Amino acid sequence: MSIREEVELLCINAKNASLKLGLLSTEKKNEILLKIAEHLKKDEDSILEANKLDLSSAEEAGVAKAMLDRLTLTSSRLDGIRDSLVSLVSLEDPVGKYQEWTAASGIQIRKAKVPLGVVAMIYEARPNVTVDSAALCLKTGNAVVLRGGREAINTNIALVRSMKDALDCCGIDPHSVELVENTDRESSMALMTMRGLVDVLIPRGGKGLIKSTLENSTVPVIETGAGNCHIYIDESADIEKAINITVNAKCSRPSVCNAAETLLVHAAIAASFLPALSEKLNGKVELRGCPRTRVLIPSSTDATEEDYYTEYNDYILAIKVVDDLSSAIDHINKHSTAHSEAIVTEDDSCAERFLKEVDSAAVYVNASTRFTDGGEFGFGAEIGISTQKLHVRGPMGLFALTTEKYMIRGNGNLR
Amino acid sequence: MSIREEVELLCINAKNASLKLGLLSTEKKNEILLKIAEHLKKDEDSILEANKLDLSSAEEAGVAKAMLDRLTLTSSRLDGIRDSLVSLVSLEDPVGKYQEWTAASGIQIRKAKVPLGVVAMIYEARPNVTVDSAALCLKTGNAVVLRGGREAINTNIALVRSMKDALDCCGIDPHSVELVENTDRESSMALMTMRGLVDVLIPRGGKGLIKSTLENSTVPVIETGAGNCHIYIDESADIEKAINITVNAKCSRPSVCNAAETLLVHAAIAASFLPALSEKLNGKVELRGCPRTRVLIPSSTDATEEDYYTEYNDYILAIKVVDDLSSAIDHINKHSTAHSEAIVTEDDSCAERFLKEVDSAAVYVNASTRFTDGGEFGFGAEIGISTQKLHVRGPMGLFALTTEKYMIRGNGNLR
Repeated sequence: MSIREEVELLCINAKNASLKLGLLSTEKKNEILLKIAEHLKKDEDSILEANKLDLSSAEEAGVAKAMLDRLTLTSSRLDGIRDSLVSLVSLEDPVGKYQEWTAASGIQIRKAKVPLGVVAMIYEARPNVTVDSAALCLKTGNAVVLRGGREAINTNIALVRSMKDALDCCGIDPHSVELVENTDRESSMALMTMRGLVDVLIPRGGKGLIKSTLENSTVPVIETGAGNCHIYIDESADIEKAINITVNAKCSRPSVCNAAETLLVHAAIAASFLPALSEKLNGKVELRGCPRTRVLIPSSTDATEEDYYTEYNDYILAIKVVDDLSSAIDHINKHSTAHSEAIVTEDDSCAERFLKEVDSAAVYVNASTRFTDGGEFGFGAEIGISTQKLHVRGPMGLFALTTEKYMIRGNGNLR
Repeated sequence: MSIREEVELLCINAKNASLKLGLLSTEKKNEILLKIAEHLKKDEDSILEANKLDLSSAEEAGVAKAMLDRLTLTSSRLDGIRDSLVSLVSLEDPVGKYQEWTAASGIQIRKAKVPLGVVAMIYEARPNVTVDSAALCLKTGNAVVLRGGREAINTNIALVRSMKDALDCCGIDPHSVELVENTDRESSMALMTMRGLVDVLIPRGGKGLIKSTLENSTVPVIETGAGNCHIYIDESADIEKAINITVNAKCSRPSVCNAAETLLVHAAIAASFLPALSEKLNGKVELRGCPRTRVLIPSSTDATEEDYYTEYNDYILAIKVVDDLSSAIDHINKHSTAHSEAIVTEDDSCAERFLKEVDSAAVYVNASTRFTDGGEFGFGAEIGISTQKLHVRGPMGLFALTTEKYMIRGNGNLR
């Protein structure tokens, strides 16, 4: 069997499983989640052993420290994964919710939430994504086809085996959770073209993965994760709030997508704000600025146009002094990845303009961009953060894994 | 300028226009629609003249009669187009609707409906699509880039010129409605790759167009239109309802996507239903059946497996006798394009199973599949019928042209 045929078979099996999954009650789906949590505990030893195998191969291959850390499972990390799983049980199940009306012709129309069907995930080396994604999909009655990174393959095989055992114990088709075990580029390319079998593909990972998925996929894709986020300090800003928000958005966790990458500062406040910010940061962040910034922060270096397009995911911040709110909005709409942007201002009309005119998934007034997160928004969980406009925008909770179906009742109605 | 650069420039201009369009009030958008209706009346002579030019080229090129008919504009057809335009004024504007809540951290989150931004349409020779699409997009604050078929190019140029004049009269950027005047394959291929400028691409046309769009587009696509629709006559069906629904679904307008293409009949009712249906159709429809069908309708011909996958859009019906409801559901989930399917039954439990287990956009009990339509569903208008699950499913009204934006207010909140 070729790699393509192998992937196709997994998808066919997942599609068949999905037709039955979609009919399960919320109670049954919760039972499955709890059973998986139980099995992951029971299988902890073999899972951690598989993870050690991956870790030693990765070390041998000279994989970077940060990646090794993401790849590592421990007993307490596995407990954390199980806790997230269990927390899904109490979340409201969107499937089955409906609106209903009678049309002019007399037919009775019900628009009901139903699962998407088969969700495919292509991701890199985080084993928690394997369980989190499967759990979110199962809670919403979707089958899932997982294609994780090469570095985590033994861990993923162990995790999926444990989940399949749990499904089996619940009398559920184990094909509901499928893992593509081949980790060559060919297998992800094959998965991207399973239109008709896969209903949506969600890539989670770096720029290269997202770009390749967008270019090669014939399956509908939800673009996630790229976050070139901006903070704009308005003329009327409260300096203390401005400093705290900037520091929080840049430094609290620079590697994540909702961290700030560019700071825009109104010219009228730049002279009081920028030196104070620089003092507060105390050399912890590399500052790259426009000529006006460089005068006010002599330790900063020149920012290039490319800097303003860059998501550093690091302790680096691009800075630009702008003449007014309009310039700030234009800069953001041109350079941003449309993820999250914030204004710091005490002027309501500026706040309103910023909220309306900035074309991003999440737009903030006087709060850190770091809040763009399914948990923080109150969705209980998230399967990624969408930066596209189709289907869903921003943090994707359970509702993002559903679609609609029109169920219509008549009594011999003709058109 | 290359074709690609030309298309890119149109898209850049449309994107800039969209940022302003998205801020307009419902009143202003309605004013624009009425002004366009006024201009289309004022410019009627030049529009009809341009249409004559297209018609004579098409005739010379030996274009099929049905296509010539679709291409033809008359004064009364133009009135019809204007009437649809005016009818949009009274429809509720989804833009600006919102839900609001306070998160655990204290930030106040508003999830508001906003326009998608730039909508691109690739379509064939119906000039009404040019005005309908532009009007639906403008009503929802979207800019639109239109790429119509070669046969209608002069008509489209005249229609778009008239619409642009109306926009200008209202003080609105005429780039809000753009027409790709080049009708080579290269221009539609270029449009398909304008990711970042175009937010969604909606192809409307035949299978070839849809397939090419899905394969080549890097822009998010909404797949529309393919309708291999099924009618299943259950064991418990009322024979008269069954005949009426089948005849209506097949014959009332066979060229459209919600017309029935395959009839499935429970074995226990086949002997009483099929001969009666055949008598009612009286040779008007070519019947292609399975062996059991052929015994009951001697005038039918053999149906191949390919027939069951085919959307005839013609007076042809594939028929298959099935042993039970499960076989009917399996047949549909395997062969259907997931558009519209109906069961005729007097048994509530069969109706419920059919509604739940058939995985299509619209599923009917005792009503014709022909009701799948934005107007019939009460949406007032439609920009197409989605057969995919992402973003929107079934008839796409104004709400399908919107996305969400999170607008968040804090008071110095940090994470």
